[in-house]
Amino acid sequence: MADTTTLKINAQRLLEDINTLGQIGATPEGGVSRPAMSEADLAGRTWFRDRAAKDRFEFNEDGAGNLSAILKCANPEAKTLLIGSHLDTVPNGGRYDGALGVLSALEVMRTVREAEIELPFHLETISFTDEEGSVFALLGSAAIAGQLTLEYLQESRGGSQQMLEGMARLGLSYDTILAAKRDPEKLVGYLEVHPEQGKRLERGKIDIGVVTSIVGIRSLWLGFAGEAAHAGTQAMDERRDALWGAAAFVLRARDLVMARYSPGVMNCGKLGISPSAFNIVPGSVELALEFRHGTDELLDEMEDVLRALAQDVAAEFGLRLAIVVAGRYEPALMNEGFIRAIETAADTVGVTHTRLMSFAGHDAQTISRAIPSAMFFVPSVDGISHNPKEYTHDRDVENGANVLLHAVLDLAAQPK
Amino acid sequence: MADTTTLKINAQRLLEDINTLGQIGATPEGGVSRPAMSEADLAGRTWFRDRAAKDRFEFNEDGAGNLSAILKCANPEAKTLLIGSHLDTVPNGGRYDGALGVLSALEVMRTVREAEIELPFHLETISFTDEEGSVFALLGSAAIAGQLTLEYLQESRGGSQQMLEGMARLGLSYDTILAAKRDPEKLVGYLEVHPEQGKRLERGKIDIGVVTSIVGIRSLWLGFAGEAAHAGTQAMDERRDALWGAAAFVLRARDLVMARYSPGVMNCGKLGISPSAFNIVPGSVELALEFRHGTDELLDEMEDVLRALAQDVAAEFGLRLAIVVAGRYEPALMNEGFIRAIETAADTVGVTHTRLMSFAGHDAQTISRAIPSAMFFVPSVDGISHNPKEYTHDRDVENGANVLLHAVLDLAAQPK
Repeated sequence: MADTTTLKINAQRLLEDINTLGQIGATPEGGVSRPAMSEADLAGRTWFRDRAAKDRFEFNEDGAGNLSAILKCANPEAKTLLIGSHLDTVPNGGRYDGALGVLSALEVMRTVREAEIELPFHLETISFTDEEGSVFALLGSAAIAGQLTLEYLQESRGGSQQMLEGMARLGLSYDTILAAKRDPEKLVGYLEVHPEQGKRLERGKIDIGVVTSIVGIRSLWLGFAGEAAHAGTQAMDERRDALWGAAAFVLRARDLVMARYSPGVMNCGKLGISPSAFNIVPGSVELALEFRHGTDELLDEMEDVLRALAQDVAAEFGLRLAIVVAGRYEPALMNEGFIRAIETAADTVGVTHTRLMSFAGHDAQTISRAIPSAMFFVPSVDGISHNPKEYTHDRDVENGANVLLHAVLDLAAQPK
Repeated sequence: MADTTTLKINAQRLLEDINTLGQIGATPEGGVSRPAMSEADLAGRTWFRDRAAKDRFEFNEDGAGNLSAILKCANPEAKTLLIGSHLDTVPNGGRYDGALGVLSALEVMRTVREAEIELPFHLETISFTDEEGSVFALLGSAAIAGQLTLEYLQESRGGSQQMLEGMARLGLSYDTILAAKRDPEKLVGYLEVHPEQGKRLERGKIDIGVVTSIVGIRSLWLGFAGEAAHAGTQAMDERRDALWGAAAFVLRARDLVMARYSPGVMNCGKLGISPSAFNIVPGSVELALEFRHGTDELLDEMEDVLRALAQDVAAEFGLRLAIVVAGRYEPALMNEGFIRAIETAADTVGVTHTRLMSFAGHDAQTISRAIPSAMFFVPSVDGISHNPKEYTHDRDVENGANVLLHAVLDLAAQPK
């Protein structure tokens, strides 16, 4: 292979694609609404198919609705390296989340072909179905990774009716989705570039954030039960006010996680009081707790500490405590070889980089359960995400695609 | 007037009345459901009318549905002393709240007549309509005190349809209710005995609690506004989590009121988060704050301090604060002469007494705006109120009625 260290993608062409795709489902606020399986999503998918046809790539749509533009190498028995992200968005989201990864991958394929580089693997730009979870979160990547069962599919978060309608619109069925699983032996792995959802790169003035793991998420319902009482006649020192316990938990959990588990995070995002009246002392409070960190060990420790804190607070305020597990998502470790390929690529391109965790879910987290995977971030202005104001500077778009290109080339150069 | 210091009510007769009335609207839990204007309330009202007829008292129902059994004195031009309470209950409430006051008053009238005591005023046992507010709180006493307007009546808390239906069931109209106002010049005042809603008497082993004022209540909505954010990607030290501010307010307001304003009280009984999701940092929180104390001066001070606390907390957590007044009930001062009449009566009966504030609303609070009024409490076991388990020991029922009797006699003996 010729020296490719100075090879660059065509930034102009990539930015034009981003702008063009951004018109599909454009909202008055300057954002994009292409929720998976919506009419706008269908229009975006059609545009991508046409764009790939114009680029003369092979095209494939699998049984889970994943769309692939493919650059075949000379060896028909070669494995495939997946690169990409997703074309769907949250309602009134931004123009970069997902689109950046798919269109950068497409641009990388064009650049590789134009440079007449012969890769040892097929290169496949893939757009996964419903990353954002409008109907079924991470549907496409979970299907490919073989993470789905019929039972799980039928518990769709959007409601099974919405799932059935969505599948019908895309021409899918539970059977075709389950059949979309791919043989890991035929895949080299998966690489993705994505705008950061946060300000770490911007604050650190760093070009590239190489993801080491996608954090695990655990969610608990904490039920604090005291005694409802008349808010006038019940003396304050005789109350067992469930909100006092919940409030103390919120503040102490915050302090504890910030002091001991940073960059791990916690959130109490929902709180329900019963009875709920100005003049009744809260008898019970249901508090939603979620916490995230990068490894099972840290998540186990956080869970122990937070459960113990809840017990302490309940005892202090004379409350009973019931804890119900509401959710559990395992952390996904990125592949060290792929991480190094991205870092090498960043050095080759001449941009700065750091390692960090992703605190949001991505297709890479499901894909990584089946094949070597890694992803990296480019800065997003003010860390804004899932918002019409989401913006990534042109130079960061360009840097991301160039790093993706050189990571692909680095993997291509590695001994098989 | 002959020496009446040893005169006693007939406790057996009073307790039988309480038991009999307690069967009307009895619930499986051992409580009573006679919400105002319900079928059970109508049955209770009919029973009271029959009971008064059996006792050969004059009977009157006014335009607000207030029921009165009247013991006329010899002088037709004399004023009237009102004694009583209410026959309605909260849903699944207790057998004493309200009933104790009405039936003790009736027993006092029987005792006065049997002892052939000639009073200088007419004595009127009154049961006020809807003290508990199933349809319109304190309707009957507010009507008599001239505290109502057509506009205010039409804002019924139970909804105007329920008000219209209730009025129809009782044969009332807005006009008759407004016409029920009585001339304060023709009334001596108002006296009431009521079970304590709290444990102060029980804890202090005191027989009678003489109410000095019915506390004022102020309610505020505190709106804390921060910034909704992704609960994974937004670093904790960059969050403006509205729940953190609200939680800090709840705990600090609690500590502050307990330390500086006891026996004044505060409560945060409602809390709403927006958005409300496990994985979204709370962007805004609406917190319901209520506080109570016995004088305008103390309420003013508490309000200043609590508003300042909310501002401090908002500033500390980077939040905006909006405060909306949700309600304001002025404290009602009881009449000092009437208070002394009750204390003198307690000494005559030979029971212990203390002065205290009422932290719940009562008919005396509306009536006191028009005429001299006072009320006193007898102990309620474990301070239980608005609950089927509400119970007052027989000896405390007897004590209460005897103190009411002698308070009436003390007022009768005072120079006009």
